[in-house]
Amino acid sequence: MARKATNGKPRRAGADAVDSTGSDGGSQAPHETLYEHLAADIAASIESGTLRPGDRLPSVRSLTATRGVSPATVFEAYYLLEARGLVRARPRSGYYVAAEPTYRSAEPVEMSTPDSAPREVRISDIIYETLQATASRHVVPLGSAFPSPALFPWQQLARTLAQAVTKLDPWATVESLTPGHEGLRRQIAMRYLVDGVRADIGEIIVTNGAMEALNLALAAVSKPGDAVVVEAPCFYACLQAIERLGLRAIEVPTCPRTGIELDALEQAIVTHKPAALWLMTNFQNPLTSSMPLEKKRDLVALLHKHRLPMIEDDAYHELFASEGRPPSTKMFDDEGWVLHCSSFSKTLAPGFRVGWVSAGRFTKEVAQQKLAASLATSVPVQAALATYLSRGHYERHLRALRARLRSLRDQYAELIAASFPAGTRISRPAGGYFLWIEMPAGVDALLLGREAMAAGISLAPGPLFSASRGFANCVRINCGHPLTDEIANAVRHVGALAARHVASVTSAG
Amino acid sequence: MARKATNGKPRRAGADAVDSTGSDGGSQAPHETLYEHLAADIAASIESGTLRPGDRLPSVRSLTATRGVSPATVFEAYYLLEARGLVRARPRSGYYVAAEPTYRSAEPVEMSTPDSAPREVRISDIIYETLQATASRHVVPLGSAFPSPALFPWQQLARTLAQAVTKLDPWATVESLTPGHEGLRRQIAMRYLVDGVRADIGEIIVTNGAMEALNLALAAVSKPGDAVVVEAPCFYACLQAIERLGLRAIEVPTCPRTGIELDALEQAIVTHKPAALWLMTNFQNPLTSSMPLEKKRDLVALLHKHRLPMIEDDAYHELFASEGRPPSTKMFDDEGWVLHCSSFSKTLAPGFRVGWVSAGRFTKEVAQQKLAASLATSVPVQAALATYLSRGHYERHLRALRARLRSLRDQYAELIAASFPAGTRISRPAGGYFLWIEMPAGVDALLLGREAMAAGISLAPGPLFSASRGFANCVRINCGHPLTDEIANAVRHVGALAARHVASVTSAG
Repeated sequence: MARKATNGKPRRAGADAVDSTGSDGGSQAPHETLYEHLAADIAASIESGTLRPGDRLPSVRSLTATRGVSPATVFEAYYLLEARGLVRARPRSGYYVAAEPTYRSAEPVEMSTPDSAPREVRISDIIYETLQATASRHVVPLGSAFPSPALFPWQQLARTLAQAVTKLDPWATVESLTPGHEGLRRQIAMRYLVDGVRADIGEIIVTNGAMEALNLALAAVSKPGDAVVVEAPCFYACLQAIERLGLRAIEVPTCPRTGIELDALEQAIVTHKPAALWLMTNFQNPLTSSMPLEKKRDLVALLHKHRLPMIEDDAYHELFASEGRPPSTKMFDDEGWVLHCSSFSKTLAPGFRVGWVSAGRFTKEVAQQKLAASLATSVPVQAALATYLSRGHYERHLRALRARLRSLRDQYAELIAASFPAGTRISRPAGGYFLWIEMPAGVDALLLGREAMAAGISLAPGPLFSASRGFANCVRINCGHPLTDEIANAVRHVGALAARHVASVTSAG
Repeated sequence: MARKATNGKPRRAGADAVDSTGSDGGSQAPHETLYEHLAADIAASIESGTLRPGDRLPSVRSLTATRGVSPATVFEAYYLLEARGLVRARPRSGYYVAAEPTYRSAEPVEMSTPDSAPREVRISDIIYETLQATASRHVVPLGSAFPSPALFPWQQLARTLAQAVTKLDPWATVESLTPGHEGLRRQIAMRYLVDGVRADIGEIIVTNGAMEALNLALAAVSKPGDAVVVEAPCFYACLQAIERLGLRAIEVPTCPRTGIELDALEQAIVTHKPAALWLMTNFQNPLTSSMPLEKKRDLVALLHKHRLPMIEDDAYHELFASEGRPPSTKMFDDEGWVLHCSSFSKTLAPGFRVGWVSAGRFTKEVAQQKLAASLATSVPVQAALATYLSRGHYERHLRALRARLRSLRDQYAELIAASFPAGTRISRPAGGYFLWIEMPAGVDALLLGREAMAAGISLAPGPLFSASRGFANCVRINCGHPLTDEIANAVRHVGALAARHVASVTSAG
């Protein structure tokens, strides 16, 4: 990440991490830490075929001896390789070179080509019904927006919350009103440092989850009737927010690999004079695209050129899989046009409802919106998360969660490739816990969703993600739940239902 | 309350409470419980002068013997008399007849006479500055919206929260999404039963404090450009909400004793066709007025006649002082036009940010707003409050809190009457923890607020509570903090500042 960031001439926060175990004085690149250097060597062995899929990596003890580094350095190197998807840990056994996921044989999905005219949004009813359907544990959660609750450290969170509340100074309930609990805001600012972003604690406003952050940010930079640029497809909450605020959506073509198309975006800006953009540049929901560093830099330059605020929904950036920590658009934004929204709901504590917005030049406007909308965010849970983060638990938990989600992604993708009709295309996410599935023309995803629900399976059909009800043959599938037999059978059942749609079109033609 | 409710032909929830300790077969009125009967007898002795201010009431033991009732019945009777302001407990000593508050010599404040034309609202900046100023413990909190954090059972809450989180089923984080934690919603429905209201659990939506409840309710029944009826003066959050949603406010004259004037209200409805009303019928903020039962019934009849939703901010109804539990407008609303909003923020757990709306016929619309605005409310704190309420702690805590607030109200009122300029009028609240102060013409409350802030004292000037910036010579004073020497000196200082305003006008004239 350090090298990428330097290439992109970003606004950097501090010095690169330095390994304290000493230096082996070898062929290390400038600014590369010992563990990065070790990881690069092992990656080269994998790429050259010296180490093959399934091979066991050298033990920590042997590498400690041969390379003259500490065990911690070896572990960091293995964690990094694991995060990049190159190796996998097997409990009580060691690290092994990962197998190539077989689903790579499925074609990547294609670019969307929406009509970009601004349009009113009427999406709330269909979203409401889908969310109601996914709220029960007895429905197979392929359409759910959340990873499995089983993936989170509940016992640790409960202990931390109990301690935090017992120690809570009653006056904190007044003093932690908007912008939020100071300790938590400091911890969030420190996470930005890890991302290479200099975010001032003063611009961080704690909210009732990312959803509230996004809504307040949008309200702060728009007025009824304004147009807002969105991706096609985009997260349905974005369409809901646009609907509630009486705005109009401009859908811009979005590449399933690299995110929104910048040429089309600039044309839409010039033509329709939007009040803001609302984008996801990392592991976009539902498309799972991720914008490369250079494209992020160009995007921010576009914001600066047109003096246009961008609301960024970055709820998944900590859940990177194989490419390492994604760079943040805020690295390039020294003018404060990015309103960066995220939360702990998908990464640590679902149901706590703690998110934030780093609001840049719009901090006062967003703080006023927060005061008027809900005054403040629950103080005990803010205090608990501040404690949890300050103890260093978060990074350890995230490492395990990332590895788990990556493994689940591969399992689901392989199963879908094997059980959906021929011609189905599956996205290749570098993070998050969704797969975007484009089925052959003729599949009616809304109908498929109703058929699946009749069998006790939720789905998130493509039209949920589009103001123009496009993506009729697409679904988003949640791959953040352990792939039990029940869920595997549900995936196969949906595949069979989709095949029937294809067959009925073929026979009708 | 039972008798009042019967007179008013309300929609009653269930049978009246029956004392299980047996019956003394005396002159008890129908439906009157033993303890109510005993309380009525003692009240009559006070009214007749048999028992005088400062007299000690009979001991529990002696009454148990002479009346043939259980000690519990005697305690309930004393609690009831205490809640009505007729007696006061002295620790380790017993119950005494309360003194008449001396501030009754100050004149009641007069009715507002606003111009009722709908107008746009621009209030956020001034409110933002006032709230920022009151968030520090080092500012004397006369302008604060919150009672003292010292009045709440923090240790008990911390224990309950710790237990609730430890037992939390991870799946509850998904299943307790909007409308909210089922156990808490059931407890809230049971509180409505205590109020004599039949509220279905299905219409209760848990929110991030009352503020979010009110905002979602307003958004659910209006669209930008609509007009909304408000009281003059009204709670500034109401004006903020109207401003954010692009609505217009119609200010209607409001009596400082009995609330909004119904004739003027109906005229405003007919003339301006508002989309909704936003009212406080109990201990109105800032005026402290309370609508009598018959007027509430007529108000609801008006809603039904005009098929008009009413958003009711009822955040203080549990904080009644001398008149007993106020009846709820929802008692009369068998058509579901009242969207009744409240919270635990002022009564039990400030900073937890848990409120609710009982949304009647607008339940689905409000639930959709909640999903889109913030998805859900923090689950651990909901679970904790559900446990706390289910154990019966809430009512015991409220009894102590009500007595404390009533005592503080009298102390502050006496001090203000003694230290503010001649001609100052002080409201006589039957609950809550505010006093509304109307100072002589010539006092500039906005200037007074700035002068007070320079001395480290916050104030809530009258114009904060008015879309037309009226009430220039009024302030709302928080009397929910223990009256320390520091606060008493602050009250005297503000009084002296106000006297200087009067003197400068007199000398100029």
